[in-house]
Amino acid sequence: MLHEITVRTHAQACMVDITSDIWEIVRTNDIDSGTALLYVPHTTCAITIQENADPGVQHDMLLLLREIAPRNDSRYRHIEDNSASHLQASAMGFSHFVFVERGRLVLGRWQAIYLAEFDGPRVRQVLTKVWRD
Amino acid sequence: MLHEITVRTHAQACMVDITSDIWEIVRTNDIDSGTALLYVPHTTCAITIQENADPGVQHDMLLLLREIAPRNDSRYRHIEDNSASHLQASAMGFSHFVFVERGRLVLGRWQAIYLAEFDGPRVRQVLTKVWRD
Amino acid sequence: MLHEITVRTHAQACMVDITSDIWEIVRTNDIDSGTALLYVPHTTCAITIQENADPGVQHDMLLLLREIAPRNDSRYRHIEDNSASHLQASAMGFSHFVFVERGRLVLGRWQAIYLAEFDGPRVRQVLTKVWRD
Repeated sequence: MLHEITVRTHAQACMVDITSDIWEIVRTNDIDSGTALLYVPHTTCAITIQENADPGVQHDMLLLLREIAPRNDSRYRHIEDNSASHLQASAMGFSHFVFVERGRLVLGRWQAIYLAEFDGPRVRQVLTKVWRD
Repeated sequence: MLHEITVRTHAQACMVDITSDIWEIVRTNDIDSGTALLYVPHTTCAITIQENADPGVQHDMLLLLREIAPRNDSRYRHIEDNSASHLQASAMGFSHFVFVERGRLVLGRWQAIYLAEFDGPRVRQVLTKVWRD
Repeated sequence: MLHEITVRTHAQACMVDITSDIWEIVRTNDIDSGTALLYVPHTTCAITIQENADPGVQHDMLLLLREIAPRNDSRYRHIEDNSASHLQASAMGFSHFVFVERGRLVLGRWQAIYLAEFDGPRVRQVLTKVWRD
């Protein structure tokens, strides 16, 4: 069964922690052991898993991604002026999975699941399926 | 069951839309609800999902990837002169999935599935399994 | 069933071939046909699939990743001085899969599965589930 989460982002580039939303899906479906599959049906935002302890990590990752793919470049041809966002999203990825064991997401001590927004603010969707083992 | 698609690429770097090939696998196998798993058994091409409306997106993504990983660098040690291709492919990724609902791939309005070629022209393979829910 | 592999890395940045460990899990579980799901519960190392023939590929990929995300930058805010490692890991990815057919991992001729370390040396874990078709 496909679950849909709506995420409202509040900046051009930001990372929104969606761990509790995914955990809620696992809990509601009473999954003891399985795998949660996560997908964003967008081309300028992505999913990644990252540290949730020091917000400096998100600041620095977004800084590096802006350097890798600058917002403006006279050679860009895309008419919407968000070419950088597309590249940044493809580098992070649109489909990821996380294991579930004993009713809990198997995340490392510092890991959280993020929607990585690169062309906000917008309203985004995250699609999830949870497979039982 | 493993399905194999052959994709012929026509440039050193390019993106080939394979959405209809994947859709054909879903249709032929009469999958109503499930997940399509996509994999490329290569090290210098990848799969990504991106916008299929404005071809400027592909132009700009490939431009950025060339800047991130230049074709030539005197410090490279790899004997085949395609080190950049390896890095570009790893950044896009070799394994991705897309959900299937009501017999259709669950893609966003602007999303298409691409084989991203970074060391062509070549003949490439895309491997697919579709899991029913 | 969740399988855990321990990987000891020996440099700040390096790639460790874990293909034989994954293959051992497939063999031990007597999987004929299925999919191996791989996950690292960390935020500064990743999994990627790459060439195992010429070690120059790994050298050049790590060189490019250092250029994309330099170890030091006066604008970084993260207190642990490993911001680059986080970005590099997110770009390579934490969750990947490889198909299994006839009891073997379906890898291309030159493909091997790597743990990509970006903040070592450390002791890392790789989590694996294998789904039968």
